Formats: sequence, C-alpha cells, structure tokens
Amino acid sequence: MERGRVEAFSDGVFAIIITIMVLELKVPHGEQVEALLPLWPVFLSYVLSFVYVGIYWNNHHHMFHASDKVNGGVLWANLHLLFWLSLFPFVTGWMGENHFAAWPAAVYGVVLLMAALAYWMLKNTLIAAQGVHSLLQRAVGRDWKGKLSPVLYVVGIGLTLWQPWLSLALYVAVALLWLVPDRRIERSLIGH
Amino acid sequence: MERGRVEAFSDGVFAIIITIMVLELKVPHGEQVEALLPLWPVFLSYVLSFVYVGIYWNNHHHMFHASDKVNGGVLWANLHLLFWLSLFPFVTGWMGENHFAAWPAAVYGVVLLMAALAYWMLKNTLIAAQGVHSLLQRAVGRDWKGKLSPVLYVVGIGLTLWQPWLSLALYVAVALLWLVPDRRIERSLIGH
Amino acid sequence: MERGRVEAFSDGVFAIIITIMVLELKVPHGEQVEALLPLWPVFLSYVLSFVYVGIYWNNHHHMFHASDKVNGGVLWANLHLLFWLSLFPFVTGWMGENHFAAWPAAVYGVVLLMAALAYWMLKNTLIAAQGVHSLLQRAVGRDWKGKLSPVLYVVGIGLTLWQPWLSLALYVAVALLWLVPDRRIERSLIGH
Amino acid sequence: MERGRVEAFSDGVFAIIITIMVLELKVPHGEQVEALLPLWPVFLSYVLSFVYVGIYWNNHHHMFHASDKVNGGVLWANLHLLFWLSLFPFVTGWMGENHFAAWPAAVYGVVLLMAALAYWMLKNTLIAAQGVHSLLQRAVGRDWKGKLSPVLYVVGIGLTLWQPWLSLALYVAVALLWLVPDRRIERSLIGH
Repeated sequence: MERGRVEAFSDGVFAIIITIMVLELKVPHGEQVEALLPLWPVFLSYVLSFVYVGIYWNNHHHMFHASDKVNGGVLWANLHLLFWLSLFPFVTGWMGENHFAAWPAAVYGVVLLMAALAYWMLKNTLIAAQGVHSLLQRAVGRDWKGKLSPVLYVVGIGLTLWQPWLSLALYVAVALLWLVPDRRIERSLIGH
Repeated sequence: MERGRVEAFSDGVFAIIITIMVLELKVPHGEQVEALLPLWPVFLSYVLSFVYVGIYWNNHHHMFHASDKVNGGVLWANLHLLFWLSLFPFVTGWMGENHFAAWPAAVYGVVLLMAALAYWMLKNTLIAAQGVHSLLQRAVGRDWKGKLSPVLYVVGIGLTLWQPWLSLALYVAVALLWLVPDRRIERSLIGH
Repeated sequence: MERGRVEAFSDGVFAIIITIMVLELKVPHGEQVEALLPLWPVFLSYVLSFVYVGIYWNNHHHMFHASDKVNGGVLWANLHLLFWLSLFPFVTGWMGENHFAAWPAAVYGVVLLMAALAYWMLKNTLIAAQGVHSLLQRAVGRDWKGKLSPVLYVVGIGLTLWQPWLSLALYVAVALLWLVPDRRIERSLIGH
Repeated sequence: MERGRVEAFSDGVFAIIITIMVLELKVPHGEQVEALLPLWPVFLSYVLSFVYVGIYWNNHHHMFHASDKVNGGVLWANLHLLFWLSLFPFVTGWMGENHFAAWPAAVYGVVLLMAALAYWMLKNTLIAAQGVHSLLQRAVGRDWKGKLSPVLYVVGIGLTLWQPWLSLALYVAVALLWLVPDRRIERSLIGH
C-alpha cells in the first residue's frame, strides 16, 4: 500500500484544522482598536494551537518520510491522531474565550495529552509495519521527547487546579521543546 | 485517465467533511466543566460520524488502490457518494442537538443508507470500468458487508419509531462491522 | 512549469467550495420532521450548486488532463474561475433562503454566467499555451456547449423579471446539458 | 527531504484561506437587491484579499518550483508565512464591515506587512538551503518588488491616520505591482 494518499488526506485535515481555528477569532463590531483588546486571549490561544498543529504536521511529515510501508493499522492509528487534533479548534476557542480559566485550561491539556498518546501509538504502529531494524526505528531512537511530553501534560493538567497560568506556561514550554525539528530523523536521513 | 486527481479531490472533500463536523460542537459560554455537559450528545454524534467518514475514506482508499481505470461514470458515481457524505455534518448536528430523538435519528439513518447505496454504485461502476476478471472484482469477492449494511440501516430507520436508542445502537454496530479494514482487498493485494 | 500543483490547488478550492455550501443548510432547532420543511428551498439550491461545481470540477479535470503546458496566464485565468466559483456558497444561500425570488435568482444567474465566461477564458488561455494543433484544441472542437451556455444564462437572468421559476428551470436544463461528461475530450484521449 | 508534501500542505492552507474568506460575506435577509448594497465594502475587501492570496500562491508556486532542497528551517519559515496569511479572513472581515475605517485599514496593512516579511524570510531560508549559485538565487535576482512592498505597506499604515482611503489605494497598487507573475523566475526557468 502506498503512503502518498495517507499523507495527502492527513495534509488536508492538518490544513483545515490549522485554518478553521482562526474562525474562533470572531470579527469585532467596533472600528476602534479597543475592539481588538478583548480578543487577545483568543489570539494567544490561536498562536499556541497553530504552533502545536505545525509541530504535529512537521513531525508527521518526518515520520512518514522515513516509512515505506503503510497498512490498515497505520490508517486507523493516523485517523485516531487526527480525531484528537480535530478537537483543537474547540478547546482553543473555549480556553481563549474564558481567559485561560482552570477548567478550559485542563481540558485543553487533556486534548494535548490524548494527541500525544495517539501520536505515540501511531509511531509504534508505523515502526511495527516497517519491520525490525528499520530506518524509522533507528531514526526515532530513544524518543525522550515523546516520553517526556505526556508526563508534562499530566503535570500541567494537575496545575490548573492551583494556578492555570502555570499550566499554560508548561504547555508553551513543551511546544518550545518540540519546535526544534526532529534532528534525530533528519540526521539519520542524510545520505538516504 | 489518471485516478490520482479523483483521489486528491475526494481526499479534500473527506478531509473537509470530517473537520467541519466539529464546528457543530459550539464553544460553550461558561468556564465551568458543567458547561460541557449539554454537549455530550453532540460529541457522541461527532465521534460516530468521524468513525463513519473514516471507514468510507479507508474503503475508498482500498478500492481505488485496486483500480487502474477511471472513466466519466466513475467520476459522477464518486461525486454522488461525496454528496451524501457532505450531508453528514448536517444530520450529525441535528441528531446531536436533539439528543438522538426519533426523527433526527431516522434522517441520520437515511443519509447512512443513501451513502451506502452510493458506495455500492461506485463499486459496481469501478468494477465495470476495470473489465472482467479484474483485481478489484476478485478483491471485493461476495461483499457480504456491503449487502448487509443497507438492510441493517433500514431496520435501524424503522426502529426509530419505536426506540431511537436501539437504532443508534444498530448504527454503532454497523460501524464496528466495518471498522475492521477490508482484509479481503488487503489479502488480494499481497504480492501486488 | 508543472500542471500538478495547479490541479492540486484547484482541487482543494473545488473541494472546499462544494463542502462549505452545505453550511448554509443550518441545523434546525425542532426535533420534528416539520423542522426540516422550511429547509427544502435551501436544500434544492444546494443540490443544484453541488451539481454545477461537480460539472466544473469534471470538465476542469478533463481539460487540464489534455494540457501539457501551464504558464503564468493560465494560473491567473484559473484563479479568476475559482473566484467566481467561490461566490457559489453566497448566492446559493441567498437564493435558497428567499425561495427562488427574482433578485436572488438573477444574481445566481450572473454568477453562473461569470463562471462560464471565466471557464471560456481559461480554456482559450490553456489552448494558446499548448501551441497550434494541440491535443486540447482538437479535443475541444467547436465547443457548442461552451457557446450556448452563456446565452441561456442571459435568457435565464432576463426571465427572473417575469417568472423566476422559469429561469431556475433553465439553470437546471444547462446543468443537465453539461452533466454528460465531455465525450469529445474523452474520445480524443483514447489511445493517449 | 521532498518538497512535494510541503507544497501539498501549503496548497491546502492557501485553498482554505481563499475560500473561508467568502464566509465573511454573510447571506443577507432581504430578497431585494438593496439587501446586497451594505455588503459592497465586504465584497471589495474580499476581492482585494483574494487577489493577494492568489499572488502569494502564485509566487510560492514559482519559488518552490525553482527549489530542490527543503529542510526543517524551510518548513517553519513556510508555516510562519501561512500563519500571517491565516489572519487574512479576520482582517478582511474587520476592514470590510467597518467600511475601510482607520484602525481596521491599519491592522490590515500590518498583516500585509508581516506576510511580506515572512515571505522574504522564507525566500532567504530557501535560497540558503539550495546552496550558493542556485537556480533560485539567479531567478530571484535583485528582487526590487520584495524590497519595495514592505516600504509601501509601512507608508500605507501611516496614511490610515490621515486618510484611510489613500492607504487602501496603496494596498491595491502593491497588489497590481505583483499581479504580473514573476517573469524573472519564469525567464530563468526556460530550458530548465
């Protein structure tokens, strides 16, 4: 089975998610600059989610690029990841409109956590499909980022009970951690 | 004629349908977790429809992968399928907002039924385009799932008059039936 | 210059236009079947526009398939066509919500007319880019449908002043005329 | 790394941005032609933004076509450009609904400016990835348009304080400047 169409479908979903999130940024009614002020938490949430979807797209791109084989399990593991990513516009809008209040920040963290777990499952399904000693397995290596992120999300979800801004800072920190493209895979692909 | 562009256009429509369905999940106004509670029927409907669109995409992927020839009839049979799938966001939203009431559940079933018939017509049009003894025809085989599903949808539509939850259970059961990727086609493609 | 990316971008726009039109079909609030009744003019408009976008996608597909060369003029002629098609959701919604009243039906006809003229310009730009005696030119032939349609749209726009339903019947008739895929191009491509 | 998937993802985002902008053109409630009159500033804004997104897509197409190598930096520079473009629907709607008032026109100019800077960064990142004496570098040449546009946007933003219509005229002028496809790149690609 060819991986091209899985990538094309995923790219479509990534592109739509990243773009419809901006629809939560409702056009204000006044023509003064003050009309924009109430929008800044929604805008900040949008920036954070845009970066997260960008990170997922980037890593998805790298991971499939290092994979040759795609089977039925991979298709469903991929749809499972896209399902959690499709909830980004909803939780981004809820968190932004409520100025990073406790519950919306916690639910945002839960969706981040589920997406991270879905990505981890997709990675394992892809590695299994490639067979032992595959390029992808060598490229991913020990994957400390993939193991650390869910832990940090859980800490972030817990922190919302005490201080939601701290949990938000943690979500931003995890994004920065991933913003660096996956050098391991890029390095392994040199000469490929 | 090349099948690549039909797949690309279909992937775009699949990706948009699966993503705009989430727009029916309106961002609630309160910041408490209670604000999420009224959304659970809409969320459940979304999950069910996401799985259905995922199943259609998966099987569409397998079916076109086993096809070499695409003609004008295939293009229109494909658009006919996409038309019924494009009604998923509407019927999903209506069913979810009315807590799986009788009429919305029946109309949801009608759209499932029409999509199933459209898929069956597309399959036959594709098989006819490939010529006799094609890979696709052998791969599809007796297609008991494709024959059983419309019957179950009709039963489900009838059940809404008596107990809508039972019809919903039936729609879920048909989804589970299809969730298993089409092993027949995958098996036939081994060594292909 | 490769034609692949022009097709991919156009497919994306076609797919989004055909799918966001369904958003004009607003989820009704009641759970009775009567709640669906007021939606039938919007639904009919949606079906007509879906068929029209499907026709444009089909013919666009055939036309680019018979073209090898794409230049800057083609890119802009293509964007010009997509611009008029992007107005379909707006005029479809306006016509449907006003039960095919005179002005909405006339404006719908104007957008159909402009899209037809834009398609005709795109065709000429593409033929010019292929050079004399090209496959595309032979395939298109005398193009009586492309010449007749704008005339019928103008008649339809005029008829809205007298009897809007007649103009709607004319729009449906033109759609049926085109529903037959462009056999000329298909025939010319045999053995290609 | 292949450039195909970057182009496919970008095409998806371009296609969605260009299409969801039309959603700001809300279907009016009356059936008379007067109901359309209040929409003309929103329509004009839409046309201007459609042309701008078309220009970006066109130049993006040319630029990647002249590039062979894509690295992690290019992926993020590209996402950065798409981020600013994703704000087009918002600023287009705000400017249109407020009849080109000072602040909305200024914010529209800021987004134009940021997109231009992001495009300039993407161009430099792409050129750096191709290595010295690349086809892309020769094709881009002195790039006077890319240097002049940000200056004109800054002037336009300043003019909103005095006469917003003048700044709008300037935005239109820059669009016309770019509407001519990048002949430099096309010329350099002859024989390529």
